[in-house]
Amino acid sequence: MELSVQLALNGLISMVGAYITYKTIPQMSSMFIKSHLSGIDLCKKDRSRVIAESQGAVSGCVYLVILFLYIPIQFMKINGSEFAHFELFVQFLAGLLSICCMLLLGFADDVLDLRWRTKLILPTIASLPLLIVYMLTYDNTTIIVPKPFRILFGFSVNLSYLYYIYLSLLAVFCTNAINIVAGINGIEAGQGLVIGSSIIAYNIIELVRNTDQWESHIFALNMMIPFVAVTIPLLYHNWYPSDVFVGDTYCYFAGMTFAVVGILGHFSKTMLLFFIPQILNFLYSCPQLFHFVQCPRHRMPKFDAKSGLLEPSTFIIKTNQIGTLGALMIRILRTFCLVRYKQIDETTFECNNLTIINFTLIIVGPIRENRLTILLLTVQCCCTFVAFLIRYGLSQIFY
Amino acid sequence: MELSVQLALNGLISMVGAYITYKTIPQMSSMFIKSHLSGIDLCKKDRSRVIAESQGAVSGCVYLVILFLYIPIQFMKINGSEFAHFELFVQFLAGLLSICCMLLLGFADDVLDLRWRTKLILPTIASLPLLIVYMLTYDNTTIIVPKPFRILFGFSVNLSYLYYIYLSLLAVFCTNAINIVAGINGIEAGQGLVIGSSIIAYNIIELVRNTDQWESHIFALNMMIPFVAVTIPLLYHNWYPSDVFVGDTYCYFAGMTFAVVGILGHFSKTMLLFFIPQILNFLYSCPQLFHFVQCPRHRMPKFDAKSGLLEPSTFIIKTNQIGTLGALMIRILRTFCLVRYKQIDETTFECNNLTIINFTLIIVGPIRENRLTILLLTVQCCCTFVAFLIRYGLSQIFY
Repeated sequence: MELSVQLALNGLISMVGAYITYKTIPQMSSMFIKSHLSGIDLCKKDRSRVIAESQGAVSGCVYLVILFLYIPIQFMKINGSEFAHFELFVQFLAGLLSICCMLLLGFADDVLDLRWRTKLILPTIASLPLLIVYMLTYDNTTIIVPKPFRILFGFSVNLSYLYYIYLSLLAVFCTNAINIVAGINGIEAGQGLVIGSSIIAYNIIELVRNTDQWESHIFALNMMIPFVAVTIPLLYHNWYPSDVFVGDTYCYFAGMTFAVVGILGHFSKTMLLFFIPQILNFLYSCPQLFHFVQCPRHRMPKFDAKSGLLEPSTFIIKTNQIGTLGALMIRILRTFCLVRYKQIDETTFECNNLTIINFTLIIVGPIRENRLTILLLTVQCCCTFVAFLIRYGLSQIFY
Repeated sequence: MELSVQLALNGLISMVGAYITYKTIPQMSSMFIKSHLSGIDLCKKDRSRVIAESQGAVSGCVYLVILFLYIPIQFMKINGSEFAHFELFVQFLAGLLSICCMLLLGFADDVLDLRWRTKLILPTIASLPLLIVYMLTYDNTTIIVPKPFRILFGFSVNLSYLYYIYLSLLAVFCTNAINIVAGINGIEAGQGLVIGSSIIAYNIIELVRNTDQWESHIFALNMMIPFVAVTIPLLYHNWYPSDVFVGDTYCYFAGMTFAVVGILGHFSKTMLLFFIPQILNFLYSCPQLFHFVQCPRHRMPKFDAKSGLLEPSTFIIKTNQIGTLGALMIRILRTFCLVRYKQIDETTFECNNLTIINFTLIIVGPIRENRLTILLLTVQCCCTFVAFLIRYGLSQIFY
């Protein structure tokens, strides 16, 4: 089948999938609430309203169904002799397997509240099939060294197993990255939409530039178009004021989908560029994530019922309870004015929770929830622009 | 790597997996109870005890982890040029994908109580990758006609697409078959254990007989040994009196694993022979399953608190409310003494729920729950014996 026809069919099925997601979410949400999969929106005045959680599960399931139904369209005509296509099929299966595992993990996390350890180990294992398929079909572990470092390392370096460790860490990072920029209406699905669209744009640009890796880019488009399609209706229902929450299910599902596309599409480094806000958030969060300082269960902004605006949420630092490293990290953040810090008494300080959401609130001051979401998503879009500048501008200089 | 070493390693990892399952289930069960994934054992005097549901999810996840870790052992040494191994890898991935989907569906069913429609449509779609892989790697849709029918059909018939419909129905049947012989302590995991062991025995026999399809049999063993390994500890915790329930999760997971092994191991017809009790139960249940007569939500046996024994549960038939077909079915069952039927008034009758569990109780009279489980599992073992007789005895006459 012609590739353009194939892609058009993908778009068509995706549109049907989007419609089904749009219709199914309201139907399923009562079922979820009945099963205690629900929460209360802490950033609203009315806290009596019970809101269905984990609706990302609906998006994820529709996504899998779309891609399952798309398999015959993509691969029916091939047979054993056409090895290249067969390879593509293996990649497709391995990708779907990893994504399905993360859907299961995400849903289990929403239902059971899994431990942090589990959330790091399971994605690592779930990325194994992905890495093995990469090894069997592509096995390129050589990176081109940027010009300034070529004196030290030469033109290229074969990272061998180190490269696979990088890919594995990438998968774990992606699955958790969106989950730690979360907590206000529309932010998770919004990130998914912006990053997904950025990846689509990148692959179309590459296809138009007529690279030799067109099969990888078609692969990426085939995976990302349905993803964006099931994300849009989810974002619609999750937009301020939210009728449903997306849950960890969506964050894991989205993250692993990006990891799959980046790794098997052979543009993992470019893909990381689309994660600039998430990377900054991760770095900023490190002192809390790795428990150098206290880390409350939820770090979302605080809602001021009087003004109806969001303010940065805080945590308490008792100077005699944190170690030297924790104290050092906070000092560095204070030096660069990256935190709002308030002394309560001699040994007790109050500091904003270390997420870019709270950091944004420090800069712009208290604002309404929907405006904060729009602001953060605008930043995400700007970062995509920066990413393209780096990919097509700076990289020409350095490579 | 030597195949025998590979199998030994599989056994070793499986044993570790079994131990982890054994240890994890009690740890997880409190987590499940906290998340409202719990039930009450209706066949016990003490109904205050809350028992964790869906512990099949633990078995299923450990199973996936075992097979993920086993991938490198099985496939690391191969490269693009060894096509046969590559094919095996694709089958392995497609199998895992279908199993993972069913784990997700089963868990979602336990949490959300999905509709019947969903439970039939989703396994059909989840079996798609399986069928496509079968098509791409084996694509044998020709069946040998039994001798008595050869005058009519010739030596063999190519069923073409019909064969794929059969395989798809097989997958749907398997995923639901164990789920409808359920409700007493140990019966679901017990069935899984007996059928799983039967499949292992069959594949070892075939390997010893030195058939040409040894790769398929190794494939089946690689999938089934870990399955049996994670089933045993689950059965231990689920045995009378149950500390945990296995949930729909286990039934779906087990069913799809059998379907995968049967289809991709190319012995789907032999595998169906191990499902004799399930097939009889399905046929017996048809009037209720397809709503020709009333079907209560639960059809498990009734517990008599006085005697501590189980009795057949019943449903009410109002003759003016069931159609001609329903009445005819009940009449046929009565003619062959397959139901216990009692007139209440002129238009109202009481009939036992149509499952082989209730049917067994009609034959042997009220007995204790654990004895019923043992009896049913003994029947299952006898049926395996019959299956082997048919496979290696009768089939020699007919083929």
